[in-house]
Amino acid sequence: MSELKLIRKFRANPPTHPWITVGPGQDCAIVSWNARRDLAYKIDQVIEGTHFVLTGPGAARPFDVGWKAMAKACSDIAATGFWPVAATVAVNLRKGSKEALAMELYRGLTACCRKYKFGLAGGDLATSEQGLSVVVSLLGEGPRNSAWLRRGARAGDTLLVTGRLGASLHSRGHLRFSPRLPEAEKIRQIVPGAVHACIDITDGLSRDLHHLCQESGVGATLDSQLIPFSAAARKIARAGGRSELEQALGDGEDFELLLAVESRAAERLLRRWRGRVPLTRIGRIERKLDILIRTNGALQRLTNVGYEHR
Amino acid sequence: MSELKLIRKFRANPPTHPWITVGPGQDCAIVSWNARRDLAYKIDQVIEGTHFVLTGPGAARPFDVGWKAMAKACSDIAATGFWPVAATVAVNLRKGSKEALAMELYRGLTACCRKYKFGLAGGDLATSEQGLSVVVSLLGEGPRNSAWLRRGARAGDTLLVTGRLGASLHSRGHLRFSPRLPEAEKIRQIVPGAVHACIDITDGLSRDLHHLCQESGVGATLDSQLIPFSAAARKIARAGGRSELEQALGDGEDFELLLAVESRAAERLLRRWRGRVPLTRIGRIERKLDILIRTNGALQRLTNVGYEHR
Repeated sequence: MSELKLIRKFRANPPTHPWITVGPGQDCAIVSWNARRDLAYKIDQVIEGTHFVLTGPGAARPFDVGWKAMAKACSDIAATGFWPVAATVAVNLRKGSKEALAMELYRGLTACCRKYKFGLAGGDLATSEQGLSVVVSLLGEGPRNSAWLRRGARAGDTLLVTGRLGASLHSRGHLRFSPRLPEAEKIRQIVPGAVHACIDITDGLSRDLHHLCQESGVGATLDSQLIPFSAAARKIARAGGRSELEQALGDGEDFELLLAVESRAAERLLRRWRGRVPLTRIGRIERKLDILIRTNGALQRLTNVGYEHR
Repeated sequence: MSELKLIRKFRANPPTHPWITVGPGQDCAIVSWNARRDLAYKIDQVIEGTHFVLTGPGAARPFDVGWKAMAKACSDIAATGFWPVAATVAVNLRKGSKEALAMELYRGLTACCRKYKFGLAGGDLATSEQGLSVVVSLLGEGPRNSAWLRRGARAGDTLLVTGRLGASLHSRGHLRFSPRLPEAEKIRQIVPGAVHACIDITDGLSRDLHHLCQESGVGATLDSQLIPFSAAARKIARAGGRSELEQALGDGEDFELLLAVESRAAERLLRRWRGRVPLTRIGRIERKLDILIRTNGALQRLTNVGYEHR
């Protein structure tokens, strides 16, 4: 059974409602609640054994599992340029779990709520023979018809990326990352209306750039020399592992934002950009559908490599 | 580890947001989105091995699992008197599941959406070594400050119940039930503002009446002769099993609504009530905190028996 094939079938003809202005297939659904504001609506899950382990090498702390579950959903809200308001959480604990584990998990979930100033509105707790799973549903909000989507990038747009890419799975980066909510808000404030498309990088830069281009019906050129690499990726490359570029293109769970921004607004944005998290121009959107990468002056076709979600 | 103790701890001091006007502990959270309308926001899960089995005796059809997952969340929205607008769903499939199972599950989920005319806005699909789990997040809406809650029942209110109670777990009733959305809407239309409190009966009439009374700071008297029993409960009683009354008081997953309604409005409502689903007066709310049941003329204290969610 192919997961992607199933998802395509599910998305073919979903039940809809006049208020759902953007349905399945984007980082968030958009529900147009009233004349002035829209909701971004997201569900996401982390499952023991698939997204984290609690024992053995690489074991995650329960706090980090809670943080990650909530922060992943926040990252999707950030990719719409909206801000979270209320979450609900469904937790399944393995029978016989210690209360301390549940409390640490809860602290991780709520630490993320408190940091980004939104509420935990409700939840459901179950205990079963199955492993730990945490499902987060998150509601964000923003001005009507202003949500950034994966579609909408135009030829000539500048491609920007927040933060630094690669190797997040080799550090605790994929667990304790900061969703780019404040950065998205800052971008929206500095260049309102100029972000034509956005996606959060969860499957590697290459795969997520392909998603964005496919949804927008455009191509892109990346400049490999401009891509900002994480310290962890540099360290792995120095130690003789995969190159920084391979890691940045292929590694999952960076949770940075990739944005297509109108080019003059992008210049203005980069000039005014301050703060700890870098914002970097890494390429541009092209009319031709190919996705290319410039390395040492030569242009190559970028394959859709990247982390394939199991 | 006690689940109830954990839930109490989680609810002690949740992160909040000015728009969350009703937080954890009710059938739904209420988010006040604008000056005229409120959202009801719910998350709920069904887990293989805990809430259903897929193999062996009593095996559920995948369609029914999907229906139940969605209908359970609808039942909570119905208990607020609101109507669903958009759902998101997180599904975890056991590795090696057949595509047909996933498609049937999806058909069950979406059949419920279509029947009650709301949309499936998005979802998340994972595959893991763990069993099937389906988490539904649901958004409903209604007029500002009008959501029915578990609290608010007043001495003198009439206790009404929709449908017939008992033995749903012994039929397919607990899988293919109809959430009482149309009934709730009808009640709201006939006696606007007269429903002081409501809960959906998931843990048995006794336990859920205790919940409603506790939240409202009141007591109640039930009249056992008035309680409407399901055909399945009657059949079990006739076959020498537990009495209809025991089943109605103690059985879980009836998914009927228990309402405390201002007494004169309740009379008007009962007079005007039409349709296939009965609405029945079964008792009244009392100032004194005891919960009593009248059986053959004698009043007894009703213990908090009922289905304890594992």
